[in-house]
Formats: sequence, structure tokens, C-alpha cells
Amino acid sequence: MTLPAPEVSREVQSRLLSRYRRIRNETESLADPLSAEDMQLQSMPDASPTKWHLAHTTWFFETFILRQEIPNYRVFDPAYHEIFNSYYNSLGQPFSRPHRGMLSRPCREEIYEYRQFVDRAMSRLLGDIEIDGALHKLVTLGLNHEQQHQELLLTDIKHAFSINPGYPAYLDASEEEEESPSGPEPLDWIEIAGGTYSIGVEGEDFCFDNEGPAHRNLLRDFRIASRLVTNGEYREFIEDGGYQEPRLWLSDGWAWVRETQAQHPAYWRNREGRWYQFTLAGLQPEQDAEPVCHLNFYEADAFASWVGQRLPTEFEWEVAACQLRAPDQLAAANLLEKRNWRPQAARGQRQFLGDVWEWTSSAYLPYPGFRASADAVGEYNGKFMCNQKVLRGGSCVTPADHIRMSYRNFFYPHQSWQFSGLRLAGDNP
Amino acid sequence: MTLPAPEVSREVQSRLLSRYRRIRNETESLADPLSAEDMQLQSMPDASPTKWHLAHTTWFFETFILRQEIPNYRVFDPAYHEIFNSYYNSLGQPFSRPHRGMLSRPCREEIYEYRQFVDRAMSRLLGDIEIDGALHKLVTLGLNHEQQHQELLLTDIKHAFSINPGYPAYLDASEEEEESPSGPEPLDWIEIAGGTYSIGVEGEDFCFDNEGPAHRNLLRDFRIASRLVTNGEYREFIEDGGYQEPRLWLSDGWAWVRETQAQHPAYWRNREGRWYQFTLAGLQPEQDAEPVCHLNFYEADAFASWVGQRLPTEFEWEVAACQLRAPDQLAAANLLEKRNWRPQAARGQRQFLGDVWEWTSSAYLPYPGFRASADAVGEYNGKFMCNQKVLRGGSCVTPADHIRMSYRNFFYPHQSWQFSGLRLAGDNP
Amino acid sequence: MTLPAPEVSREVQSRLLSRYRRIRNETESLADPLSAEDMQLQSMPDASPTKWHLAHTTWFFETFILRQEIPNYRVFDPAYHEIFNSYYNSLGQPFSRPHRGMLSRPCREEIYEYRQFVDRAMSRLLGDIEIDGALHKLVTLGLNHEQQHQELLLTDIKHAFSINPGYPAYLDASEEEEESPSGPEPLDWIEIAGGTYSIGVEGEDFCFDNEGPAHRNLLRDFRIASRLVTNGEYREFIEDGGYQEPRLWLSDGWAWVRETQAQHPAYWRNREGRWYQFTLAGLQPEQDAEPVCHLNFYEADAFASWVGQRLPTEFEWEVAACQLRAPDQLAAANLLEKRNWRPQAARGQRQFLGDVWEWTSSAYLPYPGFRASADAVGEYNGKFMCNQKVLRGGSCVTPADHIRMSYRNFFYPHQSWQFSGLRLAGDNP
Amino acid sequence: MTLPAPEVSREVQSRLLSRYRRIRNETESLADPLSAEDMQLQSMPDASPTKWHLAHTTWFFETFILRQEIPNYRVFDPAYHEIFNSYYNSLGQPFSRPHRGMLSRPCREEIYEYRQFVDRAMSRLLGDIEIDGALHKLVTLGLNHEQQHQELLLTDIKHAFSINPGYPAYLDASEEEEESPSGPEPLDWIEIAGGTYSIGVEGEDFCFDNEGPAHRNLLRDFRIASRLVTNGEYREFIEDGGYQEPRLWLSDGWAWVRETQAQHPAYWRNREGRWYQFTLAGLQPEQDAEPVCHLNFYEADAFASWVGQRLPTEFEWEVAACQLRAPDQLAAANLLEKRNWRPQAARGQRQFLGDVWEWTSSAYLPYPGFRASADAVGEYNGKFMCNQKVLRGGSCVTPADHIRMSYRNFFYPHQSWQFSGLRLAGDNP
Repeated sequence: MTLPAPEVSREVQSRLLSRYRRIRNETESLADPLSAEDMQLQSMPDASPTKWHLAHTTWFFETFILRQEIPNYRVFDPAYHEIFNSYYNSLGQPFSRPHRGMLSRPCREEIYEYRQFVDRAMSRLLGDIEIDGALHKLVTLGLNHEQQHQELLLTDIKHAFSINPGYPAYLDASEEEEESPSGPEPLDWIEIAGGTYSIGVEGEDFCFDNEGPAHRNLLRDFRIASRLVTNGEYREFIEDGGYQEPRLWLSDGWAWVRETQAQHPAYWRNREGRWYQFTLAGLQPEQDAEPVCHLNFYEADAFASWVGQRLPTEFEWEVAACQLRAPDQLAAANLLEKRNWRPQAARGQRQFLGDVWEWTSSAYLPYPGFRASADAVGEYNGKFMCNQKVLRGGSCVTPADHIRMSYRNFFYPHQSWQFSGLRLAGDNP
Repeated sequence: MTLPAPEVSREVQSRLLSRYRRIRNETESLADPLSAEDMQLQSMPDASPTKWHLAHTTWFFETFILRQEIPNYRVFDPAYHEIFNSYYNSLGQPFSRPHRGMLSRPCREEIYEYRQFVDRAMSRLLGDIEIDGALHKLVTLGLNHEQQHQELLLTDIKHAFSINPGYPAYLDASEEEEESPSGPEPLDWIEIAGGTYSIGVEGEDFCFDNEGPAHRNLLRDFRIASRLVTNGEYREFIEDGGYQEPRLWLSDGWAWVRETQAQHPAYWRNREGRWYQFTLAGLQPEQDAEPVCHLNFYEADAFASWVGQRLPTEFEWEVAACQLRAPDQLAAANLLEKRNWRPQAARGQRQFLGDVWEWTSSAYLPYPGFRASADAVGEYNGKFMCNQKVLRGGSCVTPADHIRMSYRNFFYPHQSWQFSGLRLAGDNP
Repeated sequence: MTLPAPEVSREVQSRLLSRYRRIRNETESLADPLSAEDMQLQSMPDASPTKWHLAHTTWFFETFILRQEIPNYRVFDPAYHEIFNSYYNSLGQPFSRPHRGMLSRPCREEIYEYRQFVDRAMSRLLGDIEIDGALHKLVTLGLNHEQQHQELLLTDIKHAFSINPGYPAYLDASEEEEESPSGPEPLDWIEIAGGTYSIGVEGEDFCFDNEGPAHRNLLRDFRIASRLVTNGEYREFIEDGGYQEPRLWLSDGWAWVRETQAQHPAYWRNREGRWYQFTLAGLQPEQDAEPVCHLNFYEADAFASWVGQRLPTEFEWEVAACQLRAPDQLAAANLLEKRNWRPQAARGQRQFLGDVWEWTSSAYLPYPGFRASADAVGEYNGKFMCNQKVLRGGSCVTPADHIRMSYRNFFYPHQSWQFSGLRLAGDNP
Repeated sequence: MTLPAPEVSREVQSRLLSRYRRIRNETESLADPLSAEDMQLQSMPDASPTKWHLAHTTWFFETFILRQEIPNYRVFDPAYHEIFNSYYNSLGQPFSRPHRGMLSRPCREEIYEYRQFVDRAMSRLLGDIEIDGALHKLVTLGLNHEQQHQELLLTDIKHAFSINPGYPAYLDASEEEEESPSGPEPLDWIEIAGGTYSIGVEGEDFCFDNEGPAHRNLLRDFRIASRLVTNGEYREFIEDGGYQEPRLWLSDGWAWVRETQAQHPAYWRNREGRWYQFTLAGLQPEQDAEPVCHLNFYEADAFASWVGQRLPTEFEWEVAACQLRAPDQLAAANLLEKRNWRPQAARGQRQFLGDVWEWTSSAYLPYPGFRASADAVGEYNGKFMCNQKVLRGGSCVTPADHIRMSYRNFFYPHQSWQFSGLRLAGDNP
């Protein structure tokens, strides 16, 4: 038996529409510095062109909401059904992922028209029609989905630009001037007592299905670092021969080192003995006090081994982050709205949100009792719960109203094109 | 501060020597049906030639025990140090794994001489010299290591023979005659109450480092099947189009189906509409009541989705297996000593050990507080704790004194050349 | 001793400048129908983005002429030296070929500025300064080089568009309307007497170094078809199971069929039993009377085997084409200037130039006495004289003043993205 | 109309039987030093196990002769039809070439029984029954086929042993003792006048189909070296940075260098600054005066470029070799019967047969008028006439009654596991 979905008040509905407009605008503003040619780039199968992100997020609203809700809805272009489907096999065979960069047509203008077309229909839907709670939830999912693609849009274009020997800047380098701070914040070890903790969320507020069911988890005493590992600390690992010492690496990690001949993180470059990092403002001198980023899991794990510590589990991370959360945590955190476009050195506050996604030692697995929903949207998270690792905390390009302490991001251990770093943890002695 | 290792009584030491002789003999008896040519085969990088197993297990005793314990020990052949090192990077670069089948020299006779040489030295060591507890533990590790290779020897030669269009039999097919039973045992659902359970072991008896530390784990109510999934049940999955329906598969699993064009388990063959299975006795008609085997994790998971259930976690498995264990479980189980060489239909007893390794939904990760030991033997387990899945329960080719309820085997999700199957689990309604 | 290079008359110099302007304009006019996004596409390592063609041809003039001839010449952008170098290793490591499509910057406008910058300098050089014969030759080489890239620009964008499920049209389909002719021209066998013939050219007029030295070649009696093989004839080959019969194929050709699972030429599509071909005007119904095109060498050779004939050698082709050449051959031929953009059915005239490049049985090898010149331009042809096959005759997208009877084009046997087809030949009975 | 095949005299038939026995015995004597394990080795897809060579040559006689000629012939084992078919697609899908090393069964003893079984049947056929000319020819083809596999047997086992870090010796190193000669024979340039020459053979004596039809070929004046290029000369090329200079290499050759990171020929090893070569007698010090061997075509071509010369065409080679042939050429040459197992320094005689196969600049193409025969044996040569290069002259492991001046061997340009070297040629100044 399915209960009738609760109605949504006019006020809530109106706030949803405002939020819809704000998030949709934000996506376009993130694409603003890019030319039609930039927006065409796909530098690896894991990444997508900007243009594709703009269209696919729109396709999500059209496919899962407009086509379901509006009688006799006429799609903008039937061909889009295939080419902007990401991975929903239940909707038909999606267009070949590695070839997304081959779609010069539809052109950028058509994609913007598509966005406007869908936005008008969505505005009518949210403005004129009474929606129920299920639809409210689905729109909210679509907006969170779009926010995920905002972050991907930035990390994907960063990767694409990193291939260009001219190291193009997404944003003007002059905005980026930054004093190298005197040194990193000292690292404190925070001790957390073991016990049974509640993990995950389940409630009225939006969260992804993979964040629940909320459940109890038994933890041992542990300690966790007060801040992220810095570039300077990671540089020591490099200079100590970290990439040459198999004993520091997981077996698959060492295979990765040997195959790729990696000697440093993906975006580091050495020019005449000085380290640089490729950033959204182009190639910039490495800053020792900043959190290290664009590590893959193998690198994060090897670094932790080198210092004789370990990564936290995702459960330890969540417990510590909730306990240590400052009242203004979200406002203070270095998230997308700060427009810093890169992680920043810790300054006093406890750095638990923003800057870089933190690799945990946890495999991405369903929480006890998890069930993917049976409809197409059910392909959203569950089918990826294999071979990936959980990251927590959001990054400098994650929107502030998108991140939560319970948020579970996930990537394969070899992937490093996200803003991903690490925080150390350890067992209490 | 390191305490002096405890002494080992003569009797214990004498039992160890007996065990050493028995296990070393068993390995050779398993190789007996094979010709020098068979023992040369390496059919994929994951597998090794029989000859290599015979030598590598011997190398383990020579490298970690004889070279350490016996003053001025002269190794049998210095070249063996490299070519029979499996993956101990701390001992130097091991010989290229995919090329183990290229080592026609040393020949089989030399390998047997090597075994005798090391066995004589080990017999002297265990027979004449007083050993301490640390050494006792190391010898026991070496023997358990050899038992692991006994199983691999069989699964590797099975894979190698499966490439040969003549489907050679490891053992005489006539020994294999078996009545097809009237039907599979009915499947019961056993309900287990949630709560805090102790997982893993830590004690006097030998276990691998990955089985500890013993720790407490919080489980919810769940239910688990009384027996393994059968060939007949899996055949229905095939016939229902299981390999054609993306919604049943994990994302990486569906990619595997598409890439390999798999339509059935690795060793199944269809001849004019009738299913056969390649076994250690050659190609044999499929038996509906037997547990399905040689599934990879993706297949096991997709099958569970198809029936609307799931795989157990390794913790659920361990708790259920310990609760439901029969007094004569180990004696009754279909393990190597039974010389059945294949899984058998459940008959009354609860099938929790032997027959096939059971894929669990758990990623292979360290237990809380786990630390790999710092010496070379420390590479044994820890460095593989990434990207693999845990299997439990042992198989029809696992030695009986090698398996335990706490035993954690691990393979990559795409691998299927072990005797691997599944048991269903579910959440209590 | 090097003789002073002969002077070039004002008139000749003036004609060279006109030609320079005409050819440079033609390249841009070919790019006109394309958007900045289209011009960014690189659909495989063998192909290059339109934008790259526009820049690389310009780079050729800047690198080999302006930088050598103009004292204190300031290059447009020093970074271009690497990124628009195709394969001249003697000028430094060229930018990674498969990543040319990753260069969103420099953008299209910058590339056009680059063209204007170089065109102005070239105009001054050719307009104001007395040039010698060597420079005249080098400019002419640059122009022929640009014409090669005009053809590549079209075949590369055709390939890129073929990946797009919407099959975009380079040109308006309505221009393309074409009546299906009543049937193909009947095929005549033309008999050519054996003897010693002169092959290749050497003289005042421009030709590529690989067309010489002119030399004598001994041919046997042979016969050659009066026209190209048609779509209709090739369709019969398909329908007769040509792609399923290993005996028709070269060993490497059959390996190609098995690996790619090819069942028809690259740009053929079957929609509900009807054949279509992807053309520069989008997906169009296959026309039986038109020459078959976009075959690779293996397909051309297998077709010839199927009809019991063979391909001509490049020497037979050249002798036949010269003997049978009509006075107005070049004017009548279906070349780029006709703006047909596709091969056309033979109509009366002997089809020896234009329509499709004709695969010959000859390997691409140096003519006797060939020596590549020692300077960087010497990398132009010689180093490719291995593993490729010669094609003759030009195609529907080859400029008329670029093609010659002695012209030797060359591609690898598996390549089919050029307008490539075949003409049958045979031994005289 | 087919003429009745001519009868064969008793004496000719008796000589054929003797030859059959001698060649079949020789194959087995070449396999004698090898163990069953050695005979199992397949170190790359291009190579085959010894055991497979022994069986496949036997399969050739059974398939093309016994099954055709003897009424109601019962094959030794029906399964062999597939597993010992090399590449005759017209006889059904051959067993996967890269998996030949997986066939531990049939075992060596069965293969020898197979040989005896077929030898007995062949002896009866050739001893008791009157055979005609066509059959005589086919048997002779089978014997030449077996001689080809004698050479391959040796080069394949050499490659397999080269993978083993112990560098096993096929033959006792003590037999191999050899004084390093005082220095290489001086190189003379021999001038050959241009003109029309007859190339290829056609006559009563056996030759492969690819050596005909005999035809006339027009050559220009050229010169050719009196001896092969030596190790010492090639060492200078290495030491001069030959493997670092792209201008010396063909485009595909340079791609090969970059991909494989080659720095020296395949079997060269540098140990503390001294060069060694892997030989059939194990790792031996490099001898400067010996012909360089195990070069691939790219290396041979690059070396020739480095000295400012070129490789001969296969036509130039044949003309020069015939003109300069000494009366006792074949008897003096370093061929298999000499049991030297390696090339030898030139000593007075003109080295045109034996030692190493000589890469020519010619592509492997059909001679004018060549037609493969229509039956299965017709797959013998013709279908390989693409992408390969011709080598001439035989090697130190080619049987003396197998090689001819007109003999055309062929390999892909990247292949180097044959005894392959080069002789320089040039245009007359």
C-alpha cells in the first residue's frame, strides 16, 4: 500500500523554485569563463565536457520530472534522450561515455536553449502547479545532482587544461595572488572515545540514499588529526623516496606506481628543482602550508604508512567531524562559494569541511538495510557500491548547501582528478 | 622491549615435525597425477605452474626459516631466491609473475631435489634443535602457506586444463561416477538475532594475521540460507536472461559482462542444448543439485539481486556459521581429504564448511587495530587489503586442518577460477 | 660545391603570390561551414582537428620559410613551435598526436590571427623581395602541403561527424539531391602491352620527392578496368558472404575482420534492410552506380580475390592512366573544385583521376636512387616508406592543381577514412 | 583440362623415401637436447613449442597426403586435426595460436608415437605404391615445410630460453669455445652493372610458389658489400647514440624504439660495461668480428642510414649472390649441418649463404603473374604477402638442402627472433 504523498505548502514550493533558479544559474556562471571550444574538451573517459554537464543535468529534470509530470510533454529534442543519458541502462543504451567529447553538435547555443526550455517548463511546474512531497523530493534530488556536476565541471575542465602544454587558466591568475603563510598550523591529535555511535542520516532533510539507513556502529578508541596533511609534509615523503619504496604501498598501489611511473601527485611539476602545482589559475608555485590535493587513494595510504599512521574509517571520520564541528563550520569552510578554487592552509579553525575530499580507509558499501529504489533513479548510487573508496568532507569546489557530515563521496583508488587529500588517524596507544 | 620467546616442549615440537612431513607429502601426492609437461603450465598471470608451487612453498621455508636459523646455511641454488619469490618486494624484485610458465629449467627433478634438500634441513632443525615459540609459529605459518598452495595447485591446473580442447582429466573419470540426486535439499531461512558479536580470533592456535584482532561487531537481525545456491537455481537465472539484464548487475559487473560477453559461468559449456561443466575429472554433465561454483563476485551478486536477496556480510557469515555449527562439522564437510574434487549436493547437514568458498558482500579490509608485522613475512596479507572481496568457508579442495570459521579468503570481484559460489542472506522483514 | 640558386622572374614570383593567396583562402573556405566546436574535434589519433590543420599548415610556412628567410623574424607565439609540429623530430619533440583535440587554447580566433600574421609576412616576402629558385620550390612545397591538409581536413571532419549519432552534415543536404542513375557504366577491360616504361617524374614542375627519380620499369602484358568498382558490385560481395570467407582475405586482413568484426565498409549503415552511407551531407541512401569508397586495403584486395582478379601495381596504374588519359581529363574529373563531395557514377569518360583514391598492390617504397634531403623538410616522405600501400589518382576532395598521374599517396592497409576505393586489374590470359 | 600426372621412377621414389627419413630424423635429433618441459615452452604468440613443431609437421603429411591418398585412412587422433592446424582456415578454425603452449596433452610420448604412426604410413606409401609427379611434389613440399620448422624449432627455443634468468643452454657451452678472431674481414664494395636480369625460378627442382614465376627485372648499377655487418660495427652504432637519434629511423621504427625503449638488439645484455649475447650455448661474450644478428628490420635500416648506405633490394641481392657465388658456396657456408649454432666471422670466402638471414628493403609481394593454388596448400605463402619484408640467404640454422639463392623468407619489420642481420648496399656514385 502506498500512502498519498503529502502536499507541499506554497511557501516550501516557492523556496524550491528559488533554489532551482539559484542552482541552475550557478552552473551557468561556473561555465562562464569557458569558450565553446573549452566546453568541448573531454580529456579522459572519467571526465565529461562542460557542455555535456550542462545538458545532462537538464536531461535529468526533463527525463525524471517533466516527462512524468506534464501531460503530453514534448521533449526539446528526442535525440538527447540517448546522448545525455549518463548510465541509466533502464532507459536504454546510453551514448558511449568515452566519446562525449565527440559531440560538437548540439552546439553550445543549442545546449543553452535546451536549458532555457527546460527551465521554463520547470518554472511553470514549480510556480503554477501544486506539487506533492514525492515530487519535491525528486526536484531536490535533481538539484543535488546538478551540484555534483558543478564540482565535476570544475575538476573535469581542470584535468583537460592540464593536458595543454600552455597550462591555461580557468580564472585570471591575478585574482589568485596569495602570500605563502609562515608555516602550517601545528597538527594536534584529537582523541575520541570508543562506543556505539549513530552513523548516517534518515530524516526530513534531503540526503542521498547511500547516507542511510541511519544505523549504530561500534567504534574503538581512536585519534584523529586536527588538520589535513599539507603539501610540505607530502613533499618530504617524495624527497624521502616514498615513490621508490614498495613496502609503503598496497600491492595494487605499487602496481600503479610501476605502471604509471608516478613520482609525484598528478598535478605537480618540477621545474629546475622547484615544485609547481597546476591549479585553476594555471601553473603556480607549490605552497607548503596548503593541504595536499589530487592524491589518489594509493598515495594517501602510502603517505599514512610512511608516517606510521593510517587513514580514518568513514565512521571514525563522521563521528569525529560531528563531535568537533564548530557552530559556524559551514560558513567558515573553504567551499565553492568562497571562490578560492583551491585548498587553503588551516588557520585556527578545525578543518572538517571543504578544502579537499578526504580519503577514508572504508570501501564504498551499502549501509545495513540499504535498498536501492526500484525505479530508474534507483540506479543513482547502489550499483556503484563495489571497488570504490569513500571520501568525506567536500572540497574547495563543493557548494556549501550540498555538503553534509554524512555525505559519502566515492571514487576508484587510482583516481586523483578530484580535489582529494587526506587526514591522518591512528589507534589510541 | 621484547620478551624472550617461550620454549616449546619436545612433544609439541615432535608433533610439528610430523605435521611438517604430512603436509609436505600431501603436496607431492597432489602433484602425482601430473606429468612434467602438465606441471609446466601457466594459463594466466593469476595462476602458477604446479612446479612453481612445489618450489615456492619450499623457498618459503628456506628463506624465512633456514637462512635465518641455521648458521652458515648454504642455499640449494642462489638463483632460486629471485625466481621463486612470489611478491616479497622487501627481498628484492621478484621474477615476473606472468612468466613463471617460462621456467622449464629448473626441471621437475631439480625441484624435487630442492624439496628434499630443504626437507632434510627442516627435519634436522625440528628434530634435533630446541626451537622457541616464535619459530614454531613461523613453521606453522609456512605449513599453512603450503596448504594454501595445495588448493591453488588444484585450481590452477584445473584452469590450465580448461584451455585444452581435449579437456584433460586430472583424475580418472571413472572414479567420478555419481548418481544425480533426486533434487536439491529444500532451502531453509535461518533467522539470527542482531546484537554485538565477537568477530575474528586471537589466541594460542594458529591463525592468519588478517583474522585478528578479535573485536566486537554490531549486527542487525538478519536471515541466512541453510544451504548454498545450486546449479539448477543458477541455470534458471541464465535461462531467465540474467546475463542480458543490466539492472541486476553492479556497474562494474555489467562492464565485465559486456567486455567478456559472458553468458554463463566460466566452466560451463553448452553442447546441443545440454549443459556441461569442466571438472577435475574432465567435462561432465551439469548436476542440478550441486552447489554452483566458479562464479565471480559479480555473478554471485547479480544472482542474489535476481532472487531479491543479497549476499551476507563476512560478519553475518561468521556469526551464523558459529551458531549453526554441528559438532562433527569439520569431519562431515566436503573438504580436500574427502577426495571428491567437486562440490556436493547438500544432504541433511548444514553446509557451512567445504564445497565452495562463499562470496560475501564485505570488502577485504583490516580489522580494527590490525597492524602488519614489520618484517618480510608482514607482506603476507596486509598489502592486499584493497579492491578485493572476502570469501568464507573453504572449498572441496581446502585441507581440513587449514580451514576455520574465522578464515578470510580474498579475491578480486572478477576472478572465478577458485571453487567459489554463494549463499543467500536477507534482512529480517 | 653548391651553385647559386637561379633567380626567379618577377612574373613567376607574382604568380606564386597569387597562388599562395588562392590556396590559403581555399583552406579557410573549406573550414567555413564548421563551428569552433566542430573545429575542435579529433575522433582518432590518425585524424586531426580542423583548427590544428589551419595552424599546422601555417606553422610550416613560418618554420621552414619565414624563420629562415627573414632576419630577426619574431614568431607569432613561441609555444606554437611544439604544438603545431606534426612529426619533425629534428625540430624537437612534437606535441602528442592523440592529444591534438585537447588544445582548446589557442582558440579559433587566435589561429586565424596566426594565419593572417603569417600571410602578411609571406605576402611581403613574395611581393617585395627577390626570391631564388630554392625558395620558390620551398613555397610551392608549402602550398602542396597545405593542399594535402585541405583533403585531410575534410576526411577528418567526416570521420569525426560519423561518431555523432545525429550524423551531422558538413554541407546542406539539399545541395546534395541526386538522381540515382539507371545503372553503372559497363566495365571494359583495357589491354596494355608489356615493355619498358618510364615511371615517376623529374623535371621543372613541382612534384613530391617520392615521385622520383624517374626510372625505367619493366612491365608484362596486363589488363585494367575502364572504371572503378561500384557500390552495387561491392554490395554483392557483402551479400555473398565476403566478410565471412577467410579464403578471400590476406592473413592480416582476416585478422582485421575478426578483431573488428567488420561486416561492411566503415561508413555503411543498414537500416531495416536498406543500405545507407554516411557522407559529408549526412546519412544518405547508398547509390549502386557510384564508386565504392572508404574501403581499406584488405577489403579492396578481398573484393578483387572474390571476382578472381587483382589490384593493379602502382606502375601498371601509372602506365595505363597516362596512355588512356583524355585531353580534358583534369577538367572533367570529379575533384574538389567540383564541390560534389562524393564520388560519382562513371559517365562515358574514363575515370582515372578524382572520385576515389585507388588502392594498388604496391608497397610504398623508395624509387631506385631515391634519397631524402638532409634538412628537416627531408622528413617529409622518406621516413614513411614502410608498412604502407600506395594509392593513386586523387579523390573527389583532392584539389585539381594538386593531383598528377605520378602522384603517390600512401596509407596503412587497415585505414579507410580517406575516400579510397579500387579498380580491378588482371594478367592477360 | 588436367594432364595425367607424370609417373615417378622407382629410383626417384626411393631417393624421396631416403630423404623423407633423413629429414624426419634430423627434426628429432634437433629436439634431443630438450626435456619434455623445454618442449612445452611458448614464450610469445609468434613462437611455438618444440612439441607443437614435431606434431604440426607430422599433421601436414597426414592431412595433405595420407588422408588424400590412402583409402579408408584412419587418423591417429581426430582431435589433432584442430590442434595441430597452423593457419589453414579452409580446414576449419585452427586452435588458438597464442595458446599452443597450453597443450600439455598430448604429451611428448604421444607426439613421438604420432610421428612414428605417420612415418610408417608414409614409408609404406613411398616404398610400396607407385606415386605420380604431383604426389612427389607434395611430399617434397612437406619435407621443405618440415625443414622450415627445424629452423623455427631452434629460434623458438632460443627465444624461450632467453626469458629464463638462468639463460639455459640448448647445447653444452664447452662445445662452443671459440677464439675471438683478430678482427673482422675488411669490407669490399662489389660493383654490379645495371641491366635486365632474370629473377626467381621455375623449373623441375623444388622451390616454393613464392619464388616464381621467373621474370625479368630491370636493375640500375649498384654496389653491395662483400660481407655482413659485424657486431663490432653495430656496437659503434649503439655507442654513437644510434638508438637516441630519430633522424636515423623510419617513422614506424622510431615508434618501435619509443614503445619498447630498445637500446640494443634483443639478445644483447650489458654486464658492468661489457656486452654479452644470448646464444644457443647460453650467455656468451659478444664477439666483434661475428655478423650481428637478431636485428629487426627497423634496426637494420637505421644502421644502414647511420653509415650513409642502404639495404639491397631482394632483386639486387639475388643478382649479386648469383654472380658472386663460389663453386663450393653451399658446402662452405655456415648452415645448420655445420652445427655452429651461431653466425661466424667472415674468413676469405664471400658470405652469401648462411650465418644470418639478410633483411632486404623489399616488401614481400607476389612476383608478376603469381597465383596461389586453389587448394588448401594454396594458403601456404600467398596470403602472407602484406606488411612483411623479404629476407634472403639463410642462416646458421637453415638446412643446406633447403636454401637457394632464390629463396624468399619473410617477417614483419619488428620481429627479431630469427637469426637476422644485414649486408650494406648502395647506389653507384
